[in-house]
Amino acid sequence: MSASPMPRIDLRSDTVTTPTPRMRQAMSEALVGDDVYAEDPTVNELQQEAATLLGFEAGLFMPSGTMTNQVAIAVHTQRGQEVICAEGSHIYEWELGMMAAFSGVVPRFVDAPRGVPDPEGVRRAIRRSIHQSPSGLISLEDTHNKAGGTVLPQDVLAGVREVADQEGLPLHLDGARMMNAAAAQGVAPREIARHFDSVSLCLSKGLGAPVGSVLLGSRAFIASAHRYRKMMGGGMRQAGILAAAGLIALREGPALLQGDHRRARELAHALINAGYAVDLETVQTNMVYATIQGAQAKSDAWAAQGLMANALDVDRVRFVLHHQIDDGLLARAVEIIGA
Amino acid sequence: MSASPMPRIDLRSDTVTTPTPRMRQAMSEALVGDDVYAEDPTVNELQQEAATLLGFEAGLFMPSGTMTNQVAIAVHTQRGQEVICAEGSHIYEWELGMMAAFSGVVPRFVDAPRGVPDPEGVRRAIRRSIHQSPSGLISLEDTHNKAGGTVLPQDVLAGVREVADQEGLPLHLDGARMMNAAAAQGVAPREIARHFDSVSLCLSKGLGAPVGSVLLGSRAFIASAHRYRKMMGGGMRQAGILAAAGLIALREGPALLQGDHRRARELAHALINAGYAVDLETVQTNMVYATIQGAQAKSDAWAAQGLMANALDVDRVRFVLHHQIDDGLLARAVEIIGA
Amino acid sequence: MSASPMPRIDLRSDTVTTPTPRMRQAMSEALVGDDVYAEDPTVNELQQEAATLLGFEAGLFMPSGTMTNQVAIAVHTQRGQEVICAEGSHIYEWELGMMAAFSGVVPRFVDAPRGVPDPEGVRRAIRRSIHQSPSGLISLEDTHNKAGGTVLPQDVLAGVREVADQEGLPLHLDGARMMNAAAAQGVAPREIARHFDSVSLCLSKGLGAPVGSVLLGSRAFIASAHRYRKMMGGGMRQAGILAAAGLIALREGPALLQGDHRRARELAHALINAGYAVDLETVQTNMVYATIQGAQAKSDAWAAQGLMANALDVDRVRFVLHHQIDDGLLARAVEIIGA
Amino acid sequence: MSASPMPRIDLRSDTVTTPTPRMRQAMSEALVGDDVYAEDPTVNELQQEAATLLGFEAGLFMPSGTMTNQVAIAVHTQRGQEVICAEGSHIYEWELGMMAAFSGVVPRFVDAPRGVPDPEGVRRAIRRSIHQSPSGLISLEDTHNKAGGTVLPQDVLAGVREVADQEGLPLHLDGARMMNAAAAQGVAPREIARHFDSVSLCLSKGLGAPVGSVLLGSRAFIASAHRYRKMMGGGMRQAGILAAAGLIALREGPALLQGDHRRARELAHALINAGYAVDLETVQTNMVYATIQGAQAKSDAWAAQGLMANALDVDRVRFVLHHQIDDGLLARAVEIIGA
Repeated sequence: MSASPMPRIDLRSDTVTTPTPRMRQAMSEALVGDDVYAEDPTVNELQQEAATLLGFEAGLFMPSGTMTNQVAIAVHTQRGQEVICAEGSHIYEWELGMMAAFSGVVPRFVDAPRGVPDPEGVRRAIRRSIHQSPSGLISLEDTHNKAGGTVLPQDVLAGVREVADQEGLPLHLDGARMMNAAAAQGVAPREIARHFDSVSLCLSKGLGAPVGSVLLGSRAFIASAHRYRKMMGGGMRQAGILAAAGLIALREGPALLQGDHRRARELAHALINAGYAVDLETVQTNMVYATIQGAQAKSDAWAAQGLMANALDVDRVRFVLHHQIDDGLLARAVEIIGA
Repeated sequence: MSASPMPRIDLRSDTVTTPTPRMRQAMSEALVGDDVYAEDPTVNELQQEAATLLGFEAGLFMPSGTMTNQVAIAVHTQRGQEVICAEGSHIYEWELGMMAAFSGVVPRFVDAPRGVPDPEGVRRAIRRSIHQSPSGLISLEDTHNKAGGTVLPQDVLAGVREVADQEGLPLHLDGARMMNAAAAQGVAPREIARHFDSVSLCLSKGLGAPVGSVLLGSRAFIASAHRYRKMMGGGMRQAGILAAAGLIALREGPALLQGDHRRARELAHALINAGYAVDLETVQTNMVYATIQGAQAKSDAWAAQGLMANALDVDRVRFVLHHQIDDGLLARAVEIIGA
Repeated sequence: MSASPMPRIDLRSDTVTTPTPRMRQAMSEALVGDDVYAEDPTVNELQQEAATLLGFEAGLFMPSGTMTNQVAIAVHTQRGQEVICAEGSHIYEWELGMMAAFSGVVPRFVDAPRGVPDPEGVRRAIRRSIHQSPSGLISLEDTHNKAGGTVLPQDVLAGVREVADQEGLPLHLDGARMMNAAAAQGVAPREIARHFDSVSLCLSKGLGAPVGSVLLGSRAFIASAHRYRKMMGGGMRQAGILAAAGLIALREGPALLQGDHRRARELAHALINAGYAVDLETVQTNMVYATIQGAQAKSDAWAAQGLMANALDVDRVRFVLHHQIDDGLLARAVEIIGA
Repeated sequence: MSASPMPRIDLRSDTVTTPTPRMRQAMSEALVGDDVYAEDPTVNELQQEAATLLGFEAGLFMPSGTMTNQVAIAVHTQRGQEVICAEGSHIYEWELGMMAAFSGVVPRFVDAPRGVPDPEGVRRAIRRSIHQSPSGLISLEDTHNKAGGTVLPQDVLAGVREVADQEGLPLHLDGARMMNAAAAQGVAPREIARHFDSVSLCLSKGLGAPVGSVLLGSRAFIASAHRYRKMMGGGMRQAGILAAAGLIALREGPALLQGDHRRARELAHALINAGYAVDLETVQTNMVYATIQGAQAKSDAWAAQGLMANALDVDRVRFVLHHQIDDGLLARAVEIIGA
């Protein structure tokens, strides 16, 4: 009797999913054109569909969420300004200083317990003195990755929007996982998006597409974004191949997120049962951050058994659920953790 | 008897090709992984294969040739330096100031009749005075797009390499169409690449892939390039989808270029026969630049008949041959031009 | 009987001093030359004297401390790196995003109670992952302005130096007020400077010169700094005029600082006596930060009586002592505050 | 009988002048304040006087012409744009890539025989295609240093202004030596300045001040320039010391320029008489460029006799007249050249 191969349970990120058969078929059949000339019909369809879904005039497809965020920052700011964002924001922590290197701007952090900044904290972060770097943009992240995939409440969004309006500042959403936020709140995605001047939406995270993000905004905003996309090398040719999978992700992905969120909570409880600390109040979507001494050694040991998670610090491990982790694989993960 | 639909003969660029059935199949079956974790086997295979073909230690896949060039510039230079390049170079003319916006460097132009700079001209362009911006990089383009797709002779490459060595400057090749240069000279691609510290190779131009370029260099160079790629938003997830088509382009594309070159010469003669001026000495690969008064009006008129070409100036039109223009389509193009 | 005019007691900053008669005479008699050609003898003398005083090979005179700091950051870093610094550092708070706009780098903050970072906190702030912006520089500020002009203890300097050595990172000192730190500790300035790879020293703050700062470092560092100074427009012509005053400040200024420090303590007690909160542990040099409700209104009211101080926030006022505030003026300030 | 010391005849640049006794006295008596708080009365006076002289609303004093030019470029442009300028412009040739490093912009050159661009050439240099870097600014240089100190005719200024208006582009003047242009044409300086949105005027070249330049423009322009000046480290404290000399230069310097121009022509003829080629048509102001084989060796030989000039290339030497070269020194220079 031969042993079945050890399944790989990859919980390092929701970016690790592989395209579904339907995505593969769509990619193989996609109508394409040269998107640098704006002639790729599938890209155009994706851009329009995402814009409509989120209530914007226009969209622009790019190879990554880093690019959509950084292009948005470039459009909204001038050199030497500050970008107000919650501590631990992806645009600062994981985008390698691009806000400085390209746009010439620095972050100004706002305290954000469990990822949620206070609108009055945002207001206090605004700088107007001629002796200081002036504020140029407010950027929120929903869900907030580093805080545990936490959701920004609607009244916080409304409150920050009000501050932005009063102060005449643009407001950007790093919405890499905004569909998770919408699912967790049971609201339509545009209920989140409507508070913002621009939104970056990732197709390659929880929604499951292999590659790509869409930046949404007004027509004028997107026209300006187009130039910056090209500068960063994001002008792709027959990108409809990728957009074809992106369309499926956009249409079919959101329905799968509730399951991810339920499994995340189950995993959190399993971790607690196994003796690890988890702040359950942060387990709101598809992520679980556990406090685990010797994080790297532990995650290496688990990896040897097929369970992959990210040791982010000496004592923190992150687990991310996604549509290719079903109940069976989760059960196996729980088994490994509890062993 | 019903009329057959008017064929579209798109000679605007060699970037307009659509993926072949074999590419589509390869994309639909590609083994993929998360390339941000360097785990996409197809991307890894493409990078290694391109590196081997051109004689480098390592390669890095990116969504565009603008990104491979601009990442190379970033790795090779420091802020405030000059990049020595031939007048009309793509890195300046068509990459939207990214060399300045990201790397903080300015171009220093060298005269280049028919796209070919003189090594002594390159030497004279080098700046060392403390009152001037110091030279940081020499960058060549082969074939030289704006000069007509012209080929840099081997002795020029060797001469510039010698200057670079003597002056301690790195030497980069914008090799978007270096496979055309190799085909035109009947040499192996590495005979061109061996003169350079880094090479940017496009898969989406004459080679026919839908999306993608590869940057080649030493292992240390590529490690540094990796960081800049991520900064620009070029870290894609399951990029193996694109790399699968890229591998076919790399393996099968070069054999098709000789035909493109022959057809370019035929088109050039047809244009001359039709009364337009073409500098035949520049028709060395897959491009034809013709002097045509009222360029835009003429190209609009041709477009109405299905023949598309790029009016680049008031009196210049560019035609680019590629593998989806066969002899039949060329004959039809010639007919339209001669009408 | 005529009233004598109300004296102006300007405690907004130690930058507000006007040149002494000796400085004016020195400026009027200075030997000068074109410093862009490095031919200004007085500038050369100042640079050499500052370098010797602080134990460095070379120095470079510039028009401001912002420029010396930002040039140092440029020399030490590459685009996209992080500069590790204490929260509230001048290079971030008051240098208007120049670290991003010019050098393309972002700050990484370390907690610093009363302005003093913990060496282990500095170590934890270092980033090495390929997914993050790599650390490029550690920068300390001594005395730490925003924390109250606080002094960094010698063991902290030694500890951070050790971390820097272990991690292979350069270490810069924003020493705008390092002479105050030396005076407060009763050590020679080079006892502070010896821990650093580069030091920015201001002549126009406590030392009393009208304009200028000096950047110190190795010969190679200063050669590189020279280029960046010129880029920023800091290449001045007959700058010996300013350097002549700078030399006097460097020679005679340090002896005056103990008096400033004593008067700062007296002012702090007077503020407490008047009912305002002052954290006396931060009153280590020439600054006093007081908690005062309605800070702006209060400082406006005092200004009407000739006492000028900086309302920095809704409830914070900063007072800075300097050599043009003698005991008589201080007594008058105390009188106004206590009224 | 003892020999009198060899006089030094420094014709390397008009930046090498030393302050006159009147300037030294003015500096020693200047009323000063902290210019970072805009409280230096002498700086304010200089800024206002320069603005009035050239017909602008406001002015801003800075330590160098590089800074005034680069601040102007920053105010007028966005990242990734092109700055249209004559070939050989100082903002590109001698400002060390700052336009790229700080503002993220690239130059777009216009042919300029003897330093004078054709307005239609400027128009052709404008870029609007989404595939190219868009034009952001037109910058002229009058007199044009590298072309020989040549003057831009009024109809050229008017013509370029018209192009700028039609195209909606701002127009900047690098007027480091615009007072020479005014003197050569016998027009009031504002007759030149009125064509421009901003002007950079150097006090330290022909006008003879030791340090400083003034940037002129509208109030809104100068408010924005203020921020960039501070970013570059150009916020000086008691800068009135320098402004005091600058005021004298501004008031008394222009009257001296005619003499410099006459002596330049005499020197040009002397060089021709000595067998060196000089393009007399370029000798319009205070500069002479001579073609001299073995330029460096020749200028070294002359330097040994006290005559200093700049060998700029293998066969080019530049001589610049200024107010500290009187007829006697010129006669001695002519003697050395003719020997």
